[in-house]
Amino acid sequence: MQRTANITELRKLVAEKKRLGKAIALVPTMGYLHRGHLTLIENAKQTGAYVVVSIFVNPLQFGPNEDYARYPRDLERDARLVEEAGVDLLFHPSVEEMYPQPMVTFVEVSQLDKVLCGANRPGHFRGVTTVVSKLFHIVQPDIAFFGQKDYQQYLIIRRMVSDLNLPLEVRGVPIVREEDGLALSSRNVFLSAEQRQEALILSRSLREAEGLIKNGERSAREIEEFIRKTISRESQGLVDYIEVRDADDLSDVVNIERPVLIALAVRFGSTRLIDNKVVEVEPDV
Amino acid sequence: MQRTANITELRKLVAEKKRLGKAIALVPTMGYLHRGHLTLIENAKQTGAYVVVSIFVNPLQFGPNEDYARYPRDLERDARLVEEAGVDLLFHPSVEEMYPQPMVTFVEVSQLDKVLCGANRPGHFRGVTTVVSKLFHIVQPDIAFFGQKDYQQYLIIRRMVSDLNLPLEVRGVPIVREEDGLALSSRNVFLSAEQRQEALILSRSLREAEGLIKNGERSAREIEEFIRKTISRESQGLVDYIEVRDADDLSDVVNIERPVLIALAVRFGSTRLIDNKVVEVEPDV
Repeated sequence: MQRTANITELRKLVAEKKRLGKAIALVPTMGYLHRGHLTLIENAKQTGAYVVVSIFVNPLQFGPNEDYARYPRDLERDARLVEEAGVDLLFHPSVEEMYPQPMVTFVEVSQLDKVLCGANRPGHFRGVTTVVSKLFHIVQPDIAFFGQKDYQQYLIIRRMVSDLNLPLEVRGVPIVREEDGLALSSRNVFLSAEQRQEALILSRSLREAEGLIKNGERSAREIEEFIRKTISRESQGLVDYIEVRDADDLSDVVNIERPVLIALAVRFGSTRLIDNKVVEVEPDV
Repeated sequence: MQRTANITELRKLVAEKKRLGKAIALVPTMGYLHRGHLTLIENAKQTGAYVVVSIFVNPLQFGPNEDYARYPRDLERDARLVEEAGVDLLFHPSVEEMYPQPMVTFVEVSQLDKVLCGANRPGHFRGVTTVVSKLFHIVQPDIAFFGQKDYQQYLIIRRMVSDLNLPLEVRGVPIVREEDGLALSSRNVFLSAEQRQEALILSRSLREAEGLIKNGERSAREIEEFIRKTISRESQGLVDYIEVRDADDLSDVVNIERPVLIALAVRFGSTRLIDNKVVEVEPDV
């Protein structure tokens, strides 16, 4: 595996592969890799492409009171993991390499970025879309892989790519969970044993909500209320949001008649977890 | 010369040239070409690259009360001109081809876009940077050429390219003028004979202002006031703005000590003309 922190060098390495006719796959990450990331990498490997993994904790997507400083980092461990996973090139730029001058240019996907995680994290998705467009311009991949734990982020990036004619394909990869259902997240390390146990209610309430829909419940508000009650009954988690929205464009849903995204964000102590489930429904006849 | 209105076909044609190792040069225009555009094309040809000219009157950069509908268009005349100029590929997409779905994604260069033309045309530069980033993603040029009549636009696009790591070089080409000094513009066709005569005061007052600076005047406000008085004394033109700003970052200038941009926008009847001059100064010892 090759590795570099330098944009010019990365471009040279990628250009050589392109000249040989190789497709390029990019897996953008913030590091502190877990099995979810490794699944993205597996998917990338399966395409036969030259696989680039980027590790960059992007200050632009963290609010002033968010956890940028304490976001977990372990580059050498990550480097071993991606090398074992068969990654071809690891790109781990510094903040100075990515932002050598004050940024005045931003890429913004309006509307989609105002709801769910965007409502409580102003500027978050603008930071994500801006850095992802930079990474796309730097690496120039043919395919990029994003985890669907950040389902809203995945939809926003898809929309950015299609609106701006970025010459690449975005692939979403389903959430990877622990045996007991907890969605994998780099932030899980911050949970106490007790919080980790309580956090299982997130995936369980989503599964139960799916069951209700499969059994005929069609009211989005009822589903949200059911999850809210379940979480508050069985945990100390503080709900940021619990919402049922259209799975394609995140628009409001009243009656569940098309695929919906059930998405939630809940704080356990100072750790904010997100989880979601896409539920398809048989159209009523 | 080849021509297409189709993004997929354009990409195929460009990709073939790239495979052969050809560099790609892009000259983005809104059509109704004049000698200024042809100078951009000459500059592009001189690089030896495969030259793509795009013609697209971009609705996104016109305000609701601006001249989108009446902006002059003559595709067949333009096609003949670019063919004679030795252009390799003409790209003239429809609005539907460029915006097949409602746009929710925007590229914005903040700060630089709030002054000069940006102050009176809210959303204008956001429309420009968004469509130019689309064109860059579609054509994937190695070099792109912009006229310096739109000096602010040129600076904004340079900044967008560097902030977002777009893999291309932006080259600015000096203003092309008529014999009598009028800066070439597609909008000049709207001027009556009398207005056209009066509009000469723009380039003349800029030249005279340059003379004042060369002779030692260092006050930005005095220069602005000089131009304002000259224009109002000798024409019916209504001044949108006359400003002396830093030529690199458009920041405010009080004392002229570094290269400055003198930029102005003046309306003659319903036609808004812009012109500018970059003036370098010998540093005082």
